[in-house]
Parts: sequence; C-alpha cells; structure tokens
Amino acid sequence: MVIAVGPREGQPLHTQIADSLRARIEKGELVGGERLPTTRDLAKDLGVSRSTVVRAYEQLAREGRVEGRVGMGTVVSVGVAAPQKERINWNLLLTPRVQEPDSEYAQIHRMLSQTDLLSFAGGLPSPEFFPGDAFQQLSDEVLRQQGAKLLQWCPIEGYPPLRSWIAERLGSPMENVMVLSGSTQGIHLLTQAFLEPGDTVLVEAPTYAGAIQAFRGAGARIVSIPSGPNGIDLEQLEAALDRVRAKFLYIVPTYHNPTGGCLPIAEREALVTLAAQRGLPIVEDDPYSTLRYDGPHYPSLYSLDPSECVIYLSTFSKSVFPGLRIGWIAAPTKLLPRLVSLRNLIDLFTNSLAQGSLYEFCKRGMFDAHLQRVRSEYVERRDAMVAALRRYVPTASFDVPHGGLFVWVKLPQETDARRLLEEAIDLRLGFITGPLFYPETEGRDRIRLSFACHPPKRIVDGMRRLGLALQRSLPSERASSPERDDKSPSAPRFVV
Amino acid sequence: MVIAVGPREGQPLHTQIADSLRARIEKGELVGGERLPTTRDLAKDLGVSRSTVVRAYEQLAREGRVEGRVGMGTVVSVGVAAPQKERINWNLLLTPRVQEPDSEYAQIHRMLSQTDLLSFAGGLPSPEFFPGDAFQQLSDEVLRQQGAKLLQWCPIEGYPPLRSWIAERLGSPMENVMVLSGSTQGIHLLTQAFLEPGDTVLVEAPTYAGAIQAFRGAGARIVSIPSGPNGIDLEQLEAALDRVRAKFLYIVPTYHNPTGGCLPIAEREALVTLAAQRGLPIVEDDPYSTLRYDGPHYPSLYSLDPSECVIYLSTFSKSVFPGLRIGWIAAPTKLLPRLVSLRNLIDLFTNSLAQGSLYEFCKRGMFDAHLQRVRSEYVERRDAMVAALRRYVPTASFDVPHGGLFVWVKLPQETDARRLLEEAIDLRLGFITGPLFYPETEGRDRIRLSFACHPPKRIVDGMRRLGLALQRSLPSERASSPERDDKSPSAPRFVV
Repeated sequence: MVIAVGPREGQPLHTQIADSLRARIEKGELVGGERLPTTRDLAKDLGVSRSTVVRAYEQLAREGRVEGRVGMGTVVSVGVAAPQKERINWNLLLTPRVQEPDSEYAQIHRMLSQTDLLSFAGGLPSPEFFPGDAFQQLSDEVLRQQGAKLLQWCPIEGYPPLRSWIAERLGSPMENVMVLSGSTQGIHLLTQAFLEPGDTVLVEAPTYAGAIQAFRGAGARIVSIPSGPNGIDLEQLEAALDRVRAKFLYIVPTYHNPTGGCLPIAEREALVTLAAQRGLPIVEDDPYSTLRYDGPHYPSLYSLDPSECVIYLSTFSKSVFPGLRIGWIAAPTKLLPRLVSLRNLIDLFTNSLAQGSLYEFCKRGMFDAHLQRVRSEYVERRDAMVAALRRYVPTASFDVPHGGLFVWVKLPQETDARRLLEEAIDLRLGFITGPLFYPETEGRDRIRLSFACHPPKRIVDGMRRLGLALQRSLPSERASSPERDDKSPSAPRFVV
Repeated sequence: MVIAVGPREGQPLHTQIADSLRARIEKGELVGGERLPTTRDLAKDLGVSRSTVVRAYEQLAREGRVEGRVGMGTVVSVGVAAPQKERINWNLLLTPRVQEPDSEYAQIHRMLSQTDLLSFAGGLPSPEFFPGDAFQQLSDEVLRQQGAKLLQWCPIEGYPPLRSWIAERLGSPMENVMVLSGSTQGIHLLTQAFLEPGDTVLVEAPTYAGAIQAFRGAGARIVSIPSGPNGIDLEQLEAALDRVRAKFLYIVPTYHNPTGGCLPIAEREALVTLAAQRGLPIVEDDPYSTLRYDGPHYPSLYSLDPSECVIYLSTFSKSVFPGLRIGWIAAPTKLLPRLVSLRNLIDLFTNSLAQGSLYEFCKRGMFDAHLQRVRSEYVERRDAMVAALRRYVPTASFDVPHGGLFVWVKLPQETDARRLLEEAIDLRLGFITGPLFYPETEGRDRIRLSFACHPPKRIVDGMRRLGLALQRSLPSERASSPERDDKSPSAPRFVV
C-alpha cells in the first residue's frame, strides 16, 4: 500500500497517514470490508513508529471510516467507500474567514435557535410597532410616481433623495454618505477595505460580537480596551496607541452593545483630538443613538471631528425594521469613493424600492413620529426589566441604560454564564452569554438581556425565570428538577 | 531640519524624503511661505546625493505643495499648510482589494456614465417590461397576510417559501440553496470563502468583468482558458489542470457574458466528469439561462453533476428587475452551511419583503408569464441588432446568440476598441470595450453590445452610429468632424 508521508508543515505524521487513507477510502480505492495492513506492517513500510499508525487508525475509527473486525484486524467500514457522492473535501479549500461550525458563537446560536424560548437574546426592535402599513402605502406611491426606473438600477452610493436626507440629518455633505444593505455590511466593507491578516484593530471590551467575528475572520489581531458605563477607557487607549499601530479603532460610543454605556461628551472631544494627533481612524458604529430614553443627548464622534478621522456607520434596522436591510456609512471625502468602488464588487447596490419607500417615510416626518412612539414603549420595558431584575435577581448588578436595547448584567461571582444559559433554556428562557462580546476569554460572569421585544408582563415573567435559573446554576442547587413552561412565544434568531 | 530616512522596504530615498516633508507640511509644522533648505544643504545633512533631494522637491512641486520663488529657493506653497483638515492618508491604509481609481475599468465606467448616451453598455433587462404593478400588489398582499413578522428577521438562508421554490425549480434539496442579495454577492461570498492572496482561479477568457475584478481584488492568480461560441475549450482546461492547482473554475456556460456562447451538452457532461476526476470545484454563474430565444435548452452543469463539484449562482436581476437585489446560490451539502455562516458576517440576510413578494410572483406563475413576454420582445431586439450590424457595420463579425443579452462583436483587425469608443461617445453612443472581459491584455478588437434595453428602431439608429464611429476610428478617417445627435435617452450605469 502506497501512502505518501513527508514533512508537511504543521501536520503530525499520524494525521498525514489518516488523511492519505481517508482520501483513498473516499475515492473508492479502498472498498468496504477491505482489510488495512496491520499497524506493525504499515509502521515498518513507512518507517514510523507503530503508535503513530495506531493513532491514525483510531482517528479513522472515530470517523466511522474503519472498524476492527474479529479475525480480520482493521477493515474499511461498509458503506463508507460505496460510490462516493462527494469528490471534494470543501473544508480543505476554505479560507480561515469561514467560521468554524463548532465555535462558541455557533454553539450559543444553536442553543438559542429553539423556537419556544422566551428570548431576551436578539438585538432587535419589537415587531408589534413596525410601520408595515405605512411602508405598504409609501411603496405603492413611490412605484406609481417613479415607475420602472426605480426598479432598474440605482447608484451604488444609494437612492439620491435618501442619501441626501441621511446626509442632512447627519450634518454631512451628501458626497460623504453611501447607503448600505444594513450596517453589518458596513463593518464587512471596512474589513475588506482595511484589514489584511496580521493587521491590528482596536476594539472595546466588551463590544459587538458581529464585529469581533468580522475582524477575526479577516485574520486581524484584535487588541481590546476596557469599556464600561462611561464608554472606552481613554487612558488605556492612549497606552495601547503607544504600543501598537492599529488600522482603526472600532467603537460604539452611544448606548453601547452590550453595556448600554455612553462615552461622556468631554471624552468624545478628547477621543477625536487624540485620533487626529495620532492619525488613528475611528470606526464609529451607531445603531442605537435614535433610541434615547433619558439622560443627555450625545453628539456623534463624527459630528465632533474636524479632522476627518471618523468613519460613521448606522442603520434603520433598530429604529424602523431589520427586514428593510438599510443602513449607511459616512466617510471622509477621499475615502468614500474608494469604498464605493469596493462595494461595487460586494453586492452592487441596495434594494431600490426599499430605499424609495424609506425616503418617503423619513421625508414626511413618519420616521420621527415612529421613533417617538417606540421610545415611549421601550422605556417602559426597560423600567420593567430593571424593576424585575432587582426583585427576582437581587444578587445581579447592572447599570440602567439611558438608551438602546440592552441591560448588561453582572452575575454573582461564582456563576458561569454558560451554565446559567443551560439552566435558563430548561426554563424556556434565552439571553446571550457574556464571552461572546469579548475578543479574549472574558465575561463569564456576564449576560446581556434585550428588553425591547416583550411587553412588561412578559419581561417580569422572564426575570422570574432568570432568578430561578440562577439559583439552579449554583453548584449547591443542582439537585432540583427544572419546571417547564412552554407557553412563551417563538424566538427570532439572535443578532448580537 | 530633521527628516528621517532609512531603509524602508521598497521605498526609494527620494520618496522617503518627499513623504517626510509632505507629512510635516500636512501637520502644519512647515507653514505656507516657509523656505525649505537648499537641495545642497539638505543633501549634505542627510548624506544623500543632491539629485535625490531634487527629485523629492520636484515631486512635492508636482503635487502643488512647494514652489520655486525668486530669491527664496523652494518654499512651501501658501494654502497647502493651512490648518489641515485631513489627518489621515487613507490610501496608505487601504488593502489591495480596493480598486485603483484609475483602472481601465474605472475609466471606461466614467466614459459611459454620461447621461445622454444611446447606450448598449449595461447588462440590464429593459425597464419598460418590469412587473412593477404586480410587485406592488403582491407586496400589499404579503404584508397584509404575514404582517410584521416578515419585516423583523429572516433566516440568513432566505425566506423559506422562496428558498423552497428556487430549490424545486432547480431540482435541488432546499438545504442546498441560500437566497442572496444578487448573484454578485455570490461571487463575493465565494471569493471570501475560498481565495487567499496567491491562490489560483481558472476563468474563461473572455468572462464576466465583475468576476475578474472580484478575483483580482482577492489577490488571486487568474489563469484563463479560451472560450468561444461553444464555450470553454476543454482540452486547454485539462492542460491547465495539469499545470496548476486551482481553487475553482469560474464559468458562465449558458448565453455567456460577453460572448453569448453555450457549452454543448456533451461537453457539459465531460466537464462535470473532469471536475469529479480532478476534484475541481466549479462555480457555475448562470444569470441568463432563463432568457432563451432559440436553439437547444441547455441543462445546467449543476443539474448534470452527481459528484457535488458544482456551486451554482443565479439571479432574478436579469429576468425580473435588478432593483430587487435577489439572487441565489446552490452549493454542496457540506459547503452551504459554511457559506451561511460567512454570509452572516457580510450582510445578515436579504430584504424580506422583496423575498416575500418575489415568492408570490413565482408561485402564481407570473414569473413564467413574464419570462415568456420578455423573451418574445428581446428576440426581436436581437434580430434587429443582428440585421443592423450586418447592414451598417459589415466589416464586423459576430455569432448570433441564442439567448442572454449580448452580441460580442469582432472588429476589423486594425480597429482599437478604446479608440472606437471615444469616437462612439462623440456620436452619443455607448458600449463596452473588449479588454474589460479579459484578465490579461486581450480583446482590443472586441466590443460587447447589449440589445435588450432599446426598441428595434433605436437599435438600428445605434448600429448606424456604430458604423460611422468605426469609419472615423480608422486612421485614414480622422479628419472628418463628428456629427452630434443628442436626442437619445439617458444611460444607466453599466453592469458588465
């Protein structure tokens, strides 16, 4: 039997042997029931130790590709080498950008995708307030007025009236704004534009999980700066800037995800000054600033920046509805055209009818009216969650957010968020565990609760279950059996 | 004056000196009117030759940052060092993925973006047939039936009924299909999934310009295989496979863009067999197969492939309307979930109301009725173009396409497509020049004409102008002055 083994970089010999045998099984060169050489013979043939061959055979046995059979030694499993449908091992061809299916992110995602959870996981607005009827009418009108040309093609930069409305609202020239298919696309676009494997990115810790995933996917080195109720720690940022040369700082300065924190105004000014001094590009992700309930109004970093260091991202997903898939980017004058040419290769442009309808929604004041309405509802929900947490989970601590969608809960020291989630899911309750929001192993004592999607009564019920799950997750409480409650509504997939 | 110069890799000394001075000017450390050291003094200070300093100063003078002034030597230009708005040189931070603004692609794009061209450039369907009214009604109905939940969130893989309809039409399990925001997104997704800088991709020559741009942006090595009216040359493909290890073959086997060619059925079977033998993934891009006018029906490579080697891309942009931004990918069972997890980082999901309306459009048979109608219109337009080309441009040669949107014209030997386009634009006529469709310098004697967007009469007018432009572009004909004709409709941005 010819098995090629040699100095393949980073591949132990037993893996090479297993790979080689696996390939021959998959190609049908070794058929079901066929006997493999004894480990002793093969080891001798290959000039490797017998234990190396044993490890290779064990690996294939775990995969179900070979099995031990009495009197036969090791044979190829029947059915495995049957006419092979798949000729290509896709995993071997994929780039590191493609997420491992067994990442913690994916695991938590799977745990939360059960449909009968009372879920506080998703970073989503509440569907009961979606202005669907208004959009329906506006869409009619827009199509009647504009006809087919709206459906043909649209500048990559966006439907001009919408682009102009966004720019005006932002206090920025229209030439600096591009409409995107959601602000996640903006993170992706910037990742593509700036990051090569090995480049450094600065982020807050914690920060938006999707950004961590995107930067990690790009092979970037992620350096994190602590961030709390008052946003990023500027001293630590400055110290990091002395140590590393970063492509940019990714920051959510207003109603932070997950903390709900806000960078105070003086620190905003200090940050943009620092960025200008150090030539540090800032990516300001601002999905939540329209969802303000109380406390001061915070100007965006973008609006405070005279030096064109700030790239600004936002979205209508949290303020209107996510199914719209419309966000935007505002970028320095010399950068935006380059991002436009890159976008042209990513997906050309954003659904034009959606842009047209959204423009009418904004122009006619319906956007502002809608915001007023949802804010008044969400603040009640926030208050309900805060009160219920204090009542049912008194050992947890948290800051009350002045806007956005999230309460960032610190669990009692001995609690592990993942264990708590397991208990919670037994009680048909969902939320996101802290570690997903950190680039390093941190946050095991944290969970994020999203308060927007349920009316106060259901929020109270959820916090009651959380208190129960917390009790059960403590080592001494393992004995008690979970109580079931299956009357909760279906959970959307989570967006962290 | 302190100017740091040292062995920066790949940077000549004069560039380093210019960079250093430029940075100090931009930071305001050197102000307008301030005198630079003499070239002799600076050369001495830096221990470099005087000519090196002269080159640096000349570079800055070309940029308008310094100027020679009588009796003063070289001074910083006034206004340049005024309070500098931009602190960051974005160009230095961008990855090679970001297209150079002076690429030929961008140049041709700019030439064609004049609004008064009679344009045969865009790879677009004709807006006069867009089913806008139908979509308006369907969108109403869908929102009424499904309500807010449609606007909230949608599986990354797509709105399940649409996903299922597409899968059924394709003869594929639903689990293998993901809805995309256009098939350009599919090319981007696969680029992200498979390509690292230096990886090899096989393409046809010519091929879709957007694919070349995407693969080039990813830093891939593009190896091209000739493709003509009968599609890719399989012998040459096989020879290439002996030489290179490619991540995949990107191919448009049906009504090829730009050639209009089709790979014959026997060759399709041979290609999928070859792919299986060689473990070669095939990316089949199939935007045009629904636009069939005559000739045989060609089964997709995807449908002929028992070995799961083919990844299939298609779109509703050419068959319904581009503003919809809906396409799809069908991929092997083990690959699709990996692509889904990657898509999650790119833009989460596709506009859900558009997916809902499109599903109803398909389910109720309106899609098929629409196809029948546009095909009957487009075939007339193709015939008009073919006849008018033969009449007005008799020295050009081409094959009559049996489907799709394009006629791929071979110009008389001495003609250069770029020169021809310049003459054509003088006559308010637009089309795409051949070289954009080749990864290497090829195709100077080719142009692509898109026949779908104009009624026959206007097509005849366009081909008349083309004949005129061709005469004028021949060296002997330069003297004659162009005739103007400004009554043509506005041109959409081109999609190649």
